[in-house]
Amino acid sequence: MAGLEVAAIIAVGSELLTPSRRDTNSAWLTSRLNELGVEVRSRTIAPDDLLDLAAAVRGALGRVDLLILTGGLGPTADDLTREVVAGVVGRPLVQDDRVLEGIRERFARRGVEMPAVNLKQALVPAGAVVLPNGAGTAPGLWIEVGAQTLVLLPGPPRELEPMFEALVAPRIAARTGGRRLRRRVVSVTGLSESQVEQIAQPIYGPLAGGPQPITTSILATPGRIELHLSAWGSDVDAIDRTLEAAVLELGTAIGPAVFSTDDSRLEQVIAAELSRQKLQLAVAESCTGGLLMGRLTDVPGSSAWLLGGLVAYDNRIKIEALGVTDALIAAHGAVSEPVAQAMAAGVRTRFGADLAVAITGIAGPTGGTPDKPVGTVVIAIDAAVPVVRTLRFAGTRPIVRELAVAAALEMLRRSVCPGARGPAAG
Amino acid sequence: MAGLEVAAIIAVGSELLTPSRRDTNSAWLTSRLNELGVEVRSRTIAPDDLLDLAAAVRGALGRVDLLILTGGLGPTADDLTREVVAGVVGRPLVQDDRVLEGIRERFARRGVEMPAVNLKQALVPAGAVVLPNGAGTAPGLWIEVGAQTLVLLPGPPRELEPMFEALVAPRIAARTGGRRLRRRVVSVTGLSESQVEQIAQPIYGPLAGGPQPITTSILATPGRIELHLSAWGSDVDAIDRTLEAAVLELGTAIGPAVFSTDDSRLEQVIAAELSRQKLQLAVAESCTGGLLMGRLTDVPGSSAWLLGGLVAYDNRIKIEALGVTDALIAAHGAVSEPVAQAMAAGVRTRFGADLAVAITGIAGPTGGTPDKPVGTVVIAIDAAVPVVRTLRFAGTRPIVRELAVAAALEMLRRSVCPGARGPAAG
Repeated sequence: MAGLEVAAIIAVGSELLTPSRRDTNSAWLTSRLNELGVEVRSRTIAPDDLLDLAAAVRGALGRVDLLILTGGLGPTADDLTREVVAGVVGRPLVQDDRVLEGIRERFARRGVEMPAVNLKQALVPAGAVVLPNGAGTAPGLWIEVGAQTLVLLPGPPRELEPMFEALVAPRIAARTGGRRLRRRVVSVTGLSESQVEQIAQPIYGPLAGGPQPITTSILATPGRIELHLSAWGSDVDAIDRTLEAAVLELGTAIGPAVFSTDDSRLEQVIAAELSRQKLQLAVAESCTGGLLMGRLTDVPGSSAWLLGGLVAYDNRIKIEALGVTDALIAAHGAVSEPVAQAMAAGVRTRFGADLAVAITGIAGPTGGTPDKPVGTVVIAIDAAVPVVRTLRFAGTRPIVRELAVAAALEMLRRSVCPGARGPAAG
Repeated sequence: MAGLEVAAIIAVGSELLTPSRRDTNSAWLTSRLNELGVEVRSRTIAPDDLLDLAAAVRGALGRVDLLILTGGLGPTADDLTREVVAGVVGRPLVQDDRVLEGIRERFARRGVEMPAVNLKQALVPAGAVVLPNGAGTAPGLWIEVGAQTLVLLPGPPRELEPMFEALVAPRIAARTGGRRLRRRVVSVTGLSESQVEQIAQPIYGPLAGGPQPITTSILATPGRIELHLSAWGSDVDAIDRTLEAAVLELGTAIGPAVFSTDDSRLEQVIAAELSRQKLQLAVAESCTGGLLMGRLTDVPGSSAWLLGGLVAYDNRIKIEALGVTDALIAAHGAVSEPVAQAMAAGVRTRFGADLAVAITGIAGPTGGTPDKPVGTVVIAIDAAVPVVRTLRFAGTRPIVRELAVAAALEMLRRSVCPGARGPAAG
């Protein structure tokens, strides 16, 4: 019996190749396979077409131990998975009398005679193990061909998921040899992807070829860079130690720009620190219009450290609700360091908070001037050590808003987390 | 020049094969390719691995006219798309001096010298057309090999989408046979998926078999049901007339729960109506913590009709900043109709707005009582005709928050749009 280490998933169905339908089975199966110690090396969506599907099956079988196909096991003319798999692996389809009896009984229980089209659901590639389906007429199939295993499962998640848990997972677990995937994430903010790469590559590069190889991938989203480290092995404790050493080394090299090594988000790190120090925060937003508050209040229990916030979209609100003076706005403009500082101070005082953050800026698409183009954002923190920064972001309105929120969170982190005040803070 | 009719998409990135990451580009590209008249025959996610990626490219090239690859164009060692494609199609990689200059300038504008790793982004398969990237360092590539075309685009959507629109879509449009997919979306709120299905199926069912067949699919997201209608053909005007007739018939049957037939979002519909009536809105949020404001301020130009908002996360803020009395909170609780009404009235008066919306509720995971369980949300609108509703949502904290925002937007729509006040409003 060959070990199952590397898998591919093919989701079958032309409807999954239209913009309005989404294949959710593949992500679910990936997660379960990883937990069982099987790595997923490719995921494909193939149409209900004999030749396209055959090409996808042949392609996947070229490179994996385990191929899971979902969908295309129904009774209609465009359900072709059974036929294509039998053809590709060279097994004749034979009628399975117990499967046929099961389908007949299912219809009989509903007081209906089995339609003739359902006959084909009782056809099984010779030598396949039938996986009974408790929630539908399409049985699953487990087919071993030389060193490779093919598993066919019905498409509806409420049929697929219980069948996988009861009939497929135990069979896979018995064949993996105890190999497991362990993962760690190093999250960085305030540096670009290339800056992180330049610092990190000399560390993770050699780890890929070490005695316990670690695979690293870099993921960049607006305002955040993540280093994903993963390693396979059967000695889970040893892998975890190796990963921990790598995480420590990367953390030391990258420095205070690392904000978490346990997959925590920036707002969770800030939340934990504010709770620990028993500090209460208030927020004043202009161009980000509530998005910063929305991110902060995503954290369960945020009412413990977040008093509230004010979205001052109109200058009138800045003046009346935040106590920013008319004269200050007239002298410096609504998007300026003095106004951002006055907004932060105003919301802190009025809400009785320990510290406050304020954002004012021009998210676009209009409203820019030569002096202050679209993308200009000023962020102020009113705390024991006040900070104010003028930033300029490139991109569309949603991007500018997202980058402004990320920058405000990063300034907040550096303001409240003692270890985070590195040179990059300036 | 061969016509482009059938395409495959390969999303490159090992992180997309882990449970925590999702490839959103392929669905977006499918939609755009369909609109351009190109059918998508397969979608694959391939890892950052030379052999796996090469196998995926070879497999796809066996069956399509057009292959689009996304991701893997970055500067790091695990970005392999350029190299693999050059290898599979048998073209040497050559340095493109203009690309190199562009990347150098991009870094120079940020006052940073180009890191050595970025050099490889200037390597281009011989004969390829370079597609400049306005938002990042990775250029795209358009490569014609015999009758087939390969397009390489960077992974981040904010780079990929504008590049596709400006540089790829026109090139594809010039090469298709004039067959087009036309789409319409009927957006509904305040009804369940099965309610919509029951009303709509007798209408769209027969359309699938008509002389100009229309395909309909129903898409349900929290707070919104969408009917997607689509049809293929070369006489665009005729298809559009058929679709328009179907949209009208569905709109009449479903009634005022239909909030748009042009793919507009709920907040855009509200924005247009507030602008038309020259009304100014203020917002007070508690459990949704800024998310409603965030949605409203996503609409460009929202400062014309949105004065601002207040996030009252702490009762103290409700009392001090919104003028909700201590006695009212003590008598009814912070999550109650009188308090929601007082919040709406308070923010409207203090901000000098024409109307205001307020949300207070218990998003969870904790904070529920037998009387007011987690998921209880009260929404009030203070306007010429005031409205208040107590709702109970099931789900996790993010789901409850999303449903509360959707309900508030729907109440706001019914309050400001004259045609929307149907029987479902109660």
